[in-house]
This record gives sequence, structure tokens and C-alpha cells, in this order.
Amino acid sequence: MVADASKDNEALVMSSDPDHPANLICELCRNFYRLGWVTGTGGGTSIKHNDHIYIAPSGVQKELMKPADMFVMDFPTRSYLRKPPVHKPSQCTPLFLAAFDRGAGCCIHTHSQWAVLITLLVERDFGKEACFEIQHLEQIKGIGKGRGKVGNLGYFDKLRIPIIENTAQEEDLTESLEKAMERYPDTYAVLVRRHGIYVWGDSVHKAKAQCESLDYIFQLAVEMKKLDLPWL
Amino acid sequence: MVADASKDNEALVMSSDPDHPANLICELCRNFYRLGWVTGTGGGTSIKHNDHIYIAPSGVQKELMKPADMFVMDFPTRSYLRKPPVHKPSQCTPLFLAAFDRGAGCCIHTHSQWAVLITLLVERDFGKEACFEIQHLEQIKGIGKGRGKVGNLGYFDKLRIPIIENTAQEEDLTESLEKAMERYPDTYAVLVRRHGIYVWGDSVHKAKAQCESLDYIFQLAVEMKKLDLPWL
Amino acid sequence: MVADASKDNEALVMSSDPDHPANLICELCRNFYRLGWVTGTGGGTSIKHNDHIYIAPSGVQKELMKPADMFVMDFPTRSYLRKPPVHKPSQCTPLFLAAFDRGAGCCIHTHSQWAVLITLLVERDFGKEACFEIQHLEQIKGIGKGRGKVGNLGYFDKLRIPIIENTAQEEDLTESLEKAMERYPDTYAVLVRRHGIYVWGDSVHKAKAQCESLDYIFQLAVEMKKLDLPWL
Amino acid sequence: MVADASKDNEALVMSSDPDHPANLICELCRNFYRLGWVTGTGGGTSIKHNDHIYIAPSGVQKELMKPADMFVMDFPTRSYLRKPPVHKPSQCTPLFLAAFDRGAGCCIHTHSQWAVLITLLVERDFGKEACFEIQHLEQIKGIGKGRGKVGNLGYFDKLRIPIIENTAQEEDLTESLEKAMERYPDTYAVLVRRHGIYVWGDSVHKAKAQCESLDYIFQLAVEMKKLDLPWL
Repeated sequence: MVADASKDNEALVMSSDPDHPANLICELCRNFYRLGWVTGTGGGTSIKHNDHIYIAPSGVQKELMKPADMFVMDFPTRSYLRKPPVHKPSQCTPLFLAAFDRGAGCCIHTHSQWAVLITLLVERDFGKEACFEIQHLEQIKGIGKGRGKVGNLGYFDKLRIPIIENTAQEEDLTESLEKAMERYPDTYAVLVRRHGIYVWGDSVHKAKAQCESLDYIFQLAVEMKKLDLPWL
Repeated sequence: MVADASKDNEALVMSSDPDHPANLICELCRNFYRLGWVTGTGGGTSIKHNDHIYIAPSGVQKELMKPADMFVMDFPTRSYLRKPPVHKPSQCTPLFLAAFDRGAGCCIHTHSQWAVLITLLVERDFGKEACFEIQHLEQIKGIGKGRGKVGNLGYFDKLRIPIIENTAQEEDLTESLEKAMERYPDTYAVLVRRHGIYVWGDSVHKAKAQCESLDYIFQLAVEMKKLDLPWL
Repeated sequence: MVADASKDNEALVMSSDPDHPANLICELCRNFYRLGWVTGTGGGTSIKHNDHIYIAPSGVQKELMKPADMFVMDFPTRSYLRKPPVHKPSQCTPLFLAAFDRGAGCCIHTHSQWAVLITLLVERDFGKEACFEIQHLEQIKGIGKGRGKVGNLGYFDKLRIPIIENTAQEEDLTESLEKAMERYPDTYAVLVRRHGIYVWGDSVHKAKAQCESLDYIFQLAVEMKKLDLPWL
Repeated sequence: MVADASKDNEALVMSSDPDHPANLICELCRNFYRLGWVTGTGGGTSIKHNDHIYIAPSGVQKELMKPADMFVMDFPTRSYLRKPPVHKPSQCTPLFLAAFDRGAGCCIHTHSQWAVLITLLVERDFGKEACFEIQHLEQIKGIGKGRGKVGNLGYFDKLRIPIIENTAQEEDLTESLEKAMERYPDTYAVLVRRHGIYVWGDSVHKAKAQCESLDYIFQLAVEMKKLDLPWL
């Protein structure tokens, strides 16, 4: 029986377990705020737990969120089990769902300035996605080989992250995000030009660690550019 | 009946509610200190709550403020309801009032280095305000369309923040700040050359979020300049 | 009666008052560590309270210090009232005393990278001290006019901070520090080339605020240099 | 009698003493995460306490580690006394052991971006290790003179840190790390190109302080490069 979203359904988000998705999203976003990833209510985070999708609301101060602020969606039916009336659902929802459709357990959207700068440093490739490429950095080992593959990229593997063009409405990114996911079936991230990045992973731990590794690589790549050091 | 400012009037600033203006200003300023916005007693914050204006004092360590340090002014009469004798009122007071006169619920003044660098990168325009302009950044969506207008700027809207010239005394900025507010009736912020920025919003939440979004955009714009990436 | 430094004299440093000098030095240094000023046991802080000088020891992790780690010196006789046997006295001691001789209530020594970079960007002036000069920044108002003068520098005043050459041993800086203090009687700070800065103030509050304002100005000045923006 | 690693041997890592190695590693890594040294599960730390080697596991979020996550090895026999079954041993283990073989009490491995940038700014020297060299910085005094030597480097000493080439597998670095340790018998650190750094010290305190001092120097050296200031 599916819960009635017009009810509060507090039980879906209230737990004393720090690893409950509603608690984890709050804790992650406090950390992401300190990292400059969700400044000024930007960015977002979503966790899939069995058939439940937990989503941070739109337009709130991400570092101050509480479990009661969370939206909960039933994954098979895409219907809300919980919709806090004071909040608007995240415009990122269809993008998070695209990641969950491909097996992700957690999807993180940041407005990291390093990610945005990378999208400005890689030229547009008309007709298809542009692509950020870098190699020979130990931190590349922090990124998985791809869905269904065992283990992570190696030091001699080239990291490739597709870049899609931004749209006026965030939800209109869904089609090009899904296309990029099809053309780069092994990627765990898609950059959005002048906007930020979507990073996902099989679990919360992996999504967070991959998001951190990518941000580290983007910052390093920007500093390399300032120092005239080549990426490849 | 108006309170007598020669009395302590502690009741105006003592509350166990974390959302009470006197508590919020202290909490915000601790955060602003970590962000480098109120270094060395610089900057300030003011909240309008009904007819009461709460103002952080001048020349104190902003990260260590306590509710008892707050000044409280009666908005209609501009008379102090509370004046802690150990402190001096903020020189920013007339500038905060200019924002409240235009419907703001909170006004934040920072000395952010990114804001100062932006004012140094935009040339003076004799006879009128200079203006920082940038477009095609997702974070622009974090800024409201303007007073009395519904919703925020869109991705394809150009962000324009006027820049006024600094004066010897902070209170002497009032006239040019008000002029800039009239010429840019939709702006929620005015940059002050070689000094910092004033940012306001309909509520504490909106003023803070807009201040963060603008600071993010200024930092990004400075990095873009270092990397020879154009703003427009 | 002067205390016997061979005794522990714990009473000199143990207090439940957070504003007791031994507590303040620990709290300040935790903050300075986060600011990158006392990295790797570098830097130091000293407070004069009546006739007692409290000094952080040499070579300890500054962010982990406890009141029991403090040295205490009798100012008139320059004899130690407390010398924790596990620690070495700070090599900065004679430099701190030079500031106290000129009326300071607190002296802070940092290895701030911005301060060091400024000393590298200002050329040596053989025969006398080099001098960092900058003007037209609001934050200059955070610096006092000089000993015995009322109030702070104004927006149109030029900030001048002398730079002395480094020596092999920190205590050998004392003579040139004192000379710089004599030639720049209004300064509250002396930069040490390739080393850091000494900043003092009439009180702990003022020394800290001046140290923060100067560091802000140095960081801004370095960023201005990267962006080809002139200091004067 | 050597403990059986198939048992939990919780007593080896559970202690209320904050200076117990298992507690210290957790506390250090929380700090290192804030410093950007162990982003995305990268980096690691190991402490030698008498004949026990405590090692953080591979692939975990370093800022969230608990004492129960620690591996413990018997130094003389190189056999594990404790192997948490949910974790994999660190690939850095043979490199940490190389430092302990040379008398270290603690070894820290970071992926600091400043360290990586330094390795990219120093050209490869075929046939032998490349070497980062800098002089005339006060912070150089934060580095010890070398194993068995009393005291630290002086202001006029040149700091020299060898750089070895990275390999596909971290454990394959062991041979070149040991060679670098032999050719530079006084060094307390070895940089790994496009990867990071290994820093050690006689004690936890000294390893941490040296790691901080080196990272400070690397960051300063990168900023010097951006400003066209020479290292020597």
C-alpha cells in the first residue's frame, strides 16, 4: 500500500539511525556547504533506499536542512509518499531519477566553482557533448570503471567526463543528461556547462567519494591551466 | 509606548528562540566570519522584525557577538530602543535603513575580497554608477527579479550590480547608495568600490542566500579573469 | 614577592574565566591555526596582563595548546615566574617584549603566506627598511593611527608597514625590529622578509583585529598583483 | 605470544586515552580531511607504537574512521594482529614500513594538491630522482636535519625533497621510495609525481608538524611561481 503524500508520513524520515537516508542527506549537505558546493541554496542530493527516493527540497539553505524537510518518492510508481507542504520539490528530481534508473544508489548535484571553470575551459563540440579529459593523476583511481564493472580506473586510464549544455529550466537537462549517459555508459558524472555537475555512485559512500575525487581533479586542472601545465 | 533607550531593555534581545533576530545576527556573523566577510571587525548585519531594527554594533569582533551586544531601533521614529553603552552604533545604520525603506527584511554588509576585486576590475564611469555585468551562469538564478516581482532571475538574464564610489565616512555613502537603488530599482545589492558590498532581501533567508550567490559569482568572475575567460 | 619559576605555579595559568590570558592564548591559537597563521608549530602569541607576560612555548602544535603549557614572565624584572619544564621558551620572547615596551597589550607573530608573499613582492631597500605601501582600501580603517593617537587610519590614509630582513636566529631580529619601530613610530606591525609578521595592539582585541585586517589586505594585494592591479 | 588476526582483538584499538594510536589516527585524519589531504578516501596514516604498527584501512572515508577500523601489524614479524574483515589493508603498508625501518614513529601519506603541483613544476631527471629545492624561507626551520641528527634545518639551509615517478600500483613505489631514502638519507619526505607525498617523523607530533610545514612551503612555492618569484 502506497502512503498518502497529503499526510505528513513523518515515520518515513524520522530515525535515530545516523545512516538513515533522511539523516545522511542533512549531514552530507552540511559538509557540501563547507566545501562550497551548495552555496546560496544551489545544488542538491538524493538517496535511493530500496524503493524509496529521498530528495532534498528546492530553494532551501542546504546546510540547515532537517529530516522533516525531505521529500520521499516511491521509485516504481514515481509518486510522492511525502511532500512537505512548505517546500517545493527539487527541479533536479528527473535528473536524479535518470541516475537511479541506471543503478545508482545516490546522486549529488553541486555548483562547484571548479566544475564550472572546467566547463568554461573545454570548448563546445557542436552536434555532440564536449568532454573533459585528463590523465596521469593518482586521484583518477578514486573513480569507478563503470556500471557493472569491478574496481576503479587505473593510473594510466584516461578520465573522461562529458559536458552538456545548460538549459533555462533545470528539468530540461534530463534529455541531454540521458543522452550523455548513453554515449558514455561508464561515466559516473556529467558536467553541465556554466552550471555544475551531477555525480552518482552505487552507494552514498561511493557517490560522495567520487564527487570529492572529481572536484579535487577539477581544482587541480584549473591550477594546472594557470601554471601552463597540460592536462594530457 | 516607546522603550527608553537609556534602560537596558534586555527583553528586546533575550530569547530562547534561535530565529529571534538578536540570535540570528550572532549566528549569521559567526558564519560570515568563516567566509571571510567580516574580518577584523569589518562588515555588519541588520534585521528588520516588524517595527524593530536589530543592528550589530560597530568595531566588535563579529564572530564573538552576543545578543546583549545588539542595538535595537524603532523603525517609524528612528529612535533607539536599546543602546548598549559599551558599544558604538554601526556607521552602516543609515545604509541599512535605506534598504529597509525599500521593503528589505535583512541587510548584510560584507568586506568580501571577491567583491572588492570585482570593483577594481570594473572601470569607473564618470557621471553615473559603474556596473558589474555577467551572464550565463546558473547561480544567477539565486538572485530575485526585483522588489514586488515574483520569482528569480533566469539563466539567460543578465546580472547587473551597480558600483558606487567609496567615501571617507561610511554614512556618507547613503546618498549615492540611494541613487543607485533608484537607478537600478530591481537590484538587491550595491557594490562599493575598494570597500565591499551591501546585499539585502525580503527576509533573512533571502538576504543570506543572495549574498552567498553574489559572492560565489564574484569569486568565479575573478577566477575567469585570471584564466582570460570573458564575463559576457 | 616574585614566584619561584622552579615551582609549577599552576595558579598563574589556571582560571575558569575564558578571558584569562592563558585561556585566551589557547583560544586565539586554535583560530590562528585554522587561518593558516601558525602551521607546523610556527608563529606565536603573547599577552601582557598587568605586570605578567603570558607566552606560548616554542615548537608546540599551537592548535592543541593548553593553559598549563604557558610561560609566565614578570615584566619589570624579565624573570620567569613559570617555566613548564617540558617546553622551551619562545625565541620570539625578546620581540614580544619590544612591543610591550612600546605599550602593547598583546603581540601576535604569524607565518601567514600572504605576509611572506608581500615581503617577496617588495624590493629590498639597502641601508634602511623596505616598506609595503597601499592605499584606498576600506579595510585600512581597521588599523590604528599609532601609539597615543586616538582612532584609526582613514580611507585616504596610506598604510605603510616596514619590512626587515630575516636572520638565522629569531631572537637576532630584535635589533632591527626595534629600529623599524623607531623609524615607523606609528606602526602596529613589522613584516619580516621570507618569514612572516609581528602585529601588536593596545589590547588582545585590537591586536587580533589589526592582525586580521592586515592579513586581509596582504591577501587582497597579492590577488591584485596577479590581476595587474596597482597598489597605489 | 602473537595475537590471532582472525580474532577481532578489539583490545588493541579500544582505549579511552586520546593519545592511543588508534584514536590519534582518527583525529589526525579528520584534520587532514579539512586540509584537503585525504579527499575521496585518498591518502593514509600509520603510527608505530613499540612493536605495533597501526594503519588506516584502504578506500574508506578518512574523516569518518573509527578506532575499530584500524589494522594492527606486528612490526618484527610483519604479520597482522588485527585485520577488520570489512576492510582491505592499505596499499601504502610497505611504504609505511620502509619509513619505520628507518626509525620513523609515524608516516603520513597525503594527496595534497600543492604537493602534486610541485611535482609537475619540477622536471624529470632521467636516471635518478628529480628534486624540489627551495631556500630562504623561515618555515624550512620546521623540518628536521635528518635521522640521528639533533635539531632542525636552519634558515640558510637548502630544503631538498626528492621526487619519484608514480607507478600503476601504489605498493610498487616501495623500491624507488627506498632508493630515494638511501640517496637522500637526511630527508623526512619523498614526493611522488602526479600523486602526492610521504612524510614521516620520529614521533606523531614531528611527522604532523613536518607534513604541515612542507605543505605550507609547497603552497607558497606554487604561489611564487604564479607571481614569477624564483625558488632559489
